[in-house]
Amino acid sequence: MSAAALVDEMLAGSRRALARLITYADDGGPELADIMNRVHSRTGNAHVIGITGPPGAGKSTLIWALASEYARRGRRVGVIAVDPSSPLTGGAVLGDRIRMPMGQGPSGIFFRSMASRGQLGGMSRSVRSVVHLLDAFGKDVIIIETVGAGQSDVAVRTIAHTTAVVAVPGLGDDIQMLKAGILEIADVYVVNKADREGADKTAAELEAMLKVNFATAEALGQAPPEDAWTPPIVRTIATKGAGVGELADAFDEHRRHLRETGRWDAVVRRQAEAELQEALLLRLEGALSAGPVAEERARLIDAVGRRDIPAFEAADRLLRRIGVD
Amino acid sequence: MSAAALVDEMLAGSRRALARLITYADDGGPELADIMNRVHSRTGNAHVIGITGPPGAGKSTLIWALASEYARRGRRVGVIAVDPSSPLTGGAVLGDRIRMPMGQGPSGIFFRSMASRGQLGGMSRSVRSVVHLLDAFGKDVIIIETVGAGQSDVAVRTIAHTTAVVAVPGLGDDIQMLKAGILEIADVYVVNKADREGADKTAAELEAMLKVNFATAEALGQAPPEDAWTPPIVRTIATKGAGVGELADAFDEHRRHLRETGRWDAVVRRQAEAELQEALLLRLEGALSAGPVAEERARLIDAVGRRDIPAFEAADRLLRRIGVD
Repeated sequence: MSAAALVDEMLAGSRRALARLITYADDGGPELADIMNRVHSRTGNAHVIGITGPPGAGKSTLIWALASEYARRGRRVGVIAVDPSSPLTGGAVLGDRIRMPMGQGPSGIFFRSMASRGQLGGMSRSVRSVVHLLDAFGKDVIIIETVGAGQSDVAVRTIAHTTAVVAVPGLGDDIQMLKAGILEIADVYVVNKADREGADKTAAELEAMLKVNFATAEALGQAPPEDAWTPPIVRTIATKGAGVGELADAFDEHRRHLRETGRWDAVVRRQAEAELQEALLLRLEGALSAGPVAEERARLIDAVGRRDIPAFEAADRLLRRIGVD
Repeated sequence: MSAAALVDEMLAGSRRALARLITYADDGGPELADIMNRVHSRTGNAHVIGITGPPGAGKSTLIWALASEYARRGRRVGVIAVDPSSPLTGGAVLGDRIRMPMGQGPSGIFFRSMASRGQLGGMSRSVRSVVHLLDAFGKDVIIIETVGAGQSDVAVRTIAHTTAVVAVPGLGDDIQMLKAGILEIADVYVVNKADREGADKTAAELEAMLKVNFATAEALGQAPPEDAWTPPIVRTIATKGAGVGELADAFDEHRRHLRETGRWDAVVRRQAEAELQEALLLRLEGALSAGPVAEERARLIDAVGRRDIPAFEAADRLLRRIGVD
């Protein structure tokens, strides 16, 4: 079936067509641009939430509870779990795909696990494409799970409207959390497994970090505006469903804040900038993969490896071959 | 001082010139291509070792001990520590730059801490450029430290000849390690803090994982060739220097293996491929940042954000503007 026909079927409500289109998006093949061009005007409605945190923080359980909570509230929910993948095989790491049911979950929740590609940019493009598909399909809330820290978390900031970091008591000391380098990016902080010893300490550390960030910004003359968002710290016990309603409220509240302050548009522009960049790279890759250019590229890679020609000179030669001066 | 003059001074042995060139490389500014073109023919001699692992594994202490060990053996050593950085400020996370002395360490070891940039590809290009500079400066061994897991670790595989993963007893269970998604990539495994309870269990888990990997590959008809490298598991207590000599031996042995089996050339080609790609992206970015094209790009980003035009159509328009059909 053609991409056009699949898109029509998907827009008419076919989950099978959606699943097939997602596979195209995940592969990043030549059909991707055509599919995205066709769904583009139907996107931009969903609230996209990125949730990250260290392994062991209970993110999967939390997200499942959150998705169910949204479903109970009548929202149509999609979940994308980005698995850390084996850079050698390109596949997801053993044991990671079995955490949550695949495909259709309870309450109409659509779940998809994706391998995070070794290639820079590839993961981000795939996830963004799947978000567009779920959005066009009519999902109101799309939750993306990534394992922190790493560049994938930074990339999620260019896909999601709202980001959350899940911390957990007893997973290393405070400098460890800082080292993870992911805390500063969040709109909402979660202390999961909040019935564990040390939950108060973890929440206090998060609060102290937020205060230090604020004081530092103020001292640098970069104090946030009056109407700036203050990231809440929400305590949850995902396995018991505790705090999950408050978390859904916090995400809704952040969405309302973005809308009311006009910041939603800035977020959308940042997303569009990243999306255009990803499209440029895929198109460039296409131009460089065509017959004779691809052969010259292979020769130039060898020459760079032999130290016969610097990489930038090789790049300039290739770009001239495809028309760039 | 011009880039050409700085390169001449650096090649004549000036550490001050080296430090200034590294700052250019880190910034990724317009001088970078010129500098790389000038040092390119002087590179390709150093053994580049990437060391990754979770926060708290004691990587910094281990690398300092390893660098000192190599220095004692008469090697000239450079160390690059890639810090997870704040995606908002672009700076390294507080507290992370103070771990090791900056600049000139004992025994002539050159140390440099770098912030890992939020932009995809930027970190990789910066680190590779600094590796080339240290290589041209005459370093025999260059050690890159990254915090796992994440795309930065995958990127290091395209820069280093030899990669090591540092595990540590008691940092989560075995599925956690698998989830980190970084174990499969290593040429050498290290169990640091080997005097801690659980060290035997950690080493046994690593060994079991390697056996499973091997068995899986065999079952898939992808059994490694006879002369394949078998990753050793080295136990260290970095704070006491224990096992550090064995670790240096293991890295040297891997380098010898790569050389003797001809695999060194394949590694170098993989590095050249990634380097050419990074150069292409920097050049493309330059072409898209020139006056009128940059203005059209800004307009197109707005249009994509408003859902007026799909990202791929916008990308095609921009590429036509710079000559690509």
